[in-house]
Amino acid sequence: MKTELSTALGIEHALFGFTPFPAVAAALSRAGGLGVLGAVRYSDPDDLRRDLDRLERHCGGRPWGLDVVMPAHRAAGDTEAEAEAMIPDGHRRYVQEILDRHGVPELPGDERGGWRITGWMEQVARRQLDVAFDYPVRLLASALGPPPPDVVARARGHGVRTAALAGSARHARRHAEAGIDIVVAQGYEAGGHTGEIATMVLTPEVVAAVDPLPVLAAGGIGSGEQIAAALALGAQGVWLGSLWLTTTEAELPSRALTARLLAAGSGDTVRSRALTGKPARQLRTAWTDAWDDPEGPGALPMPLQGLLVADAVSRIQRYEATPLLGTPVGQIVGSMTSERSVRAVVDDLTRGFERAVTRLHRIAGRS
Amino acid sequence: MKTELSTALGIEHALFGFTPFPAVAAALSRAGGLGVLGAVRYSDPDDLRRDLDRLERHCGGRPWGLDVVMPAHRAAGDTEAEAEAMIPDGHRRYVQEILDRHGVPELPGDERGGWRITGWMEQVARRQLDVAFDYPVRLLASALGPPPPDVVARARGHGVRTAALAGSARHARRHAEAGIDIVVAQGYEAGGHTGEIATMVLTPEVVAAVDPLPVLAAGGIGSGEQIAAALALGAQGVWLGSLWLTTTEAELPSRALTARLLAAGSGDTVRSRALTGKPARQLRTAWTDAWDDPEGPGALPMPLQGLLVADAVSRIQRYEATPLLGTPVGQIVGSMTSERSVRAVVDDLTRGFERAVTRLHRIAGRS
Repeated sequence: MKTELSTALGIEHALFGFTPFPAVAAALSRAGGLGVLGAVRYSDPDDLRRDLDRLERHCGGRPWGLDVVMPAHRAAGDTEAEAEAMIPDGHRRYVQEILDRHGVPELPGDERGGWRITGWMEQVARRQLDVAFDYPVRLLASALGPPPPDVVARARGHGVRTAALAGSARHARRHAEAGIDIVVAQGYEAGGHTGEIATMVLTPEVVAAVDPLPVLAAGGIGSGEQIAAALALGAQGVWLGSLWLTTTEAELPSRALTARLLAAGSGDTVRSRALTGKPARQLRTAWTDAWDDPEGPGALPMPLQGLLVADAVSRIQRYEATPLLGTPVGQIVGSMTSERSVRAVVDDLTRGFERAVTRLHRIAGRS
Repeated sequence: MKTELSTALGIEHALFGFTPFPAVAAALSRAGGLGVLGAVRYSDPDDLRRDLDRLERHCGGRPWGLDVVMPAHRAAGDTEAEAEAMIPDGHRRYVQEILDRHGVPELPGDERGGWRITGWMEQVARRQLDVAFDYPVRLLASALGPPPPDVVARARGHGVRTAALAGSARHARRHAEAGIDIVVAQGYEAGGHTGEIATMVLTPEVVAAVDPLPVLAAGGIGSGEQIAAALALGAQGVWLGSLWLTTTEAELPSRALTARLLAAGSGDTVRSRALTGKPARQLRTAWTDAWDDPEGPGALPMPLQGLLVADAVSRIQRYEATPLLGTPVGQIVGSMTSERSVRAVVDDLTRGFERAVTRLHRIAGRS
């Protein structure tokens, strides 16, 4: 699976893997793809530094990337405290009601939720970037809107390629105008933040909109056959996220969550604002139902919803409150039915891709 | 584009085209695909007979099919009059309010809406089947649930293959158990009745679920590259509907509607119950907004909604009430930007397919 882009980046396969886990990113880079570590959960720059050290140590000298969330529009106060102050009491009570209804215990002592998701806030993202540029990062991705012009310029100065996710051709064009090097077309069926246009339609639209920039297809891709489909649509590679959640290298916060992922079907996800305040595909749970309930108060805008629910999400995970226990994941969750190593997954992907190419060749009457 | 299925059916390309227009179906069969005429609008068997005569006359002796809607569960009375009696007055007033708000005139004299959509009702569908078996129909498709066992048996007796649409692997398995020959996996991005699983995920799921039955992929397919993608996913052919709406052979009820289709982007459709009572993707209009409005009465179940709105739809079309003027269509509407003949469309599809196969071959390092 070699395209102009994979060749330019010096990787064996045009496989880009988004993951919150350094061990997964390192394993994917070692297996010939490009592992991209999600930075959103690193509120503390020292934690990020520790995990980038770990990633560097284990990636065998292969290229890797970092995904930083920098919302184009500031949605709340400058500091976490200012943002916290904007959360209505009624919403806090609603969180408590949901947890009480399911008998979820408090966190011990003065412990607070680990994933506060304040990475949504610009000043946190900027501290993450300061750390990243101390490392040989090769790709800097932005999940919500293009990074600000100074960040794009700084990346270019360091010889770091930039990528940005887009759910529509219009967003993709905005990225291209902002000087981004690679556009990730993220379809409706993807896990995490996503729009309403499906990958089959979105990919060629984005390819045409930003030509000659390279496009990665994201959403609905968890097999080599799906990779072949995405590349047939004009993508120069694929951006995979969900697939790594059930790899043996993944460090999910709870075994019960792994079990839920392995059991879920393609119809068991929902696009919900429950986790971050923006529509993100995730497992459907009693938690998403509560926030999508027209009788409830509804989710707050980003980044307030993330702050509001951070402790609750930690409690749900720690005490394995199964009916509430979810995670961002795409519709391919239905095909994630066993735990395998990243290497085994990559081997499967390349084999499936080869099979699909052979099949198409036959259908085209060329063999 | 030759697969086992296309070879078995004696067609040149594994292209199946659903259309309400006999001229389109005939042109597609002549161009080497298999045109499938939608029967839902033929309440009167004589009208169907007239159009099948026309189709036979113009298809050059090539195979063609018929799509009949037979809901598995009866949802309303046995006759149109009984069904009409089940419609609440409040819903009739709501229709009138929408039309009044947009100044849509009454139909002249005692004229009634042409597309009463009573084809949803089983006894109407059975009359259509009686007509169809008088002709050399090669494929009988069912858009909502598998046909009843006696219909499957009758088709088999006549040497007619049966196909049924499925939006999930579960529905596909039900079709296979009912003795259907071909499953059409219809993704979220498709026009008309559709589920929530995107084509990229649904196609391989359905292929695995009904193996060794052949599967056609539907939804998000309007180019040769998208056909290559669908076939890479394991489909034995593609089922295209939206694409034909802007062909020169199409007989849309209004030029304004053609203009809307040519202007619409991929984000301008919505899955709404506004037209039939079941979620169907269509152009988003003031009409769909009114029925999707949480403050409104909401759509009635099928077939009542279709009966309720039949006259209104005719009035909207006849008087070209643009803000209300819609049609079922998929997300590929964004790529439908010019009127072309069916033949020109098919030529484009085959060329795009060849390009995609060549590109994949190169990416796989085989040339």
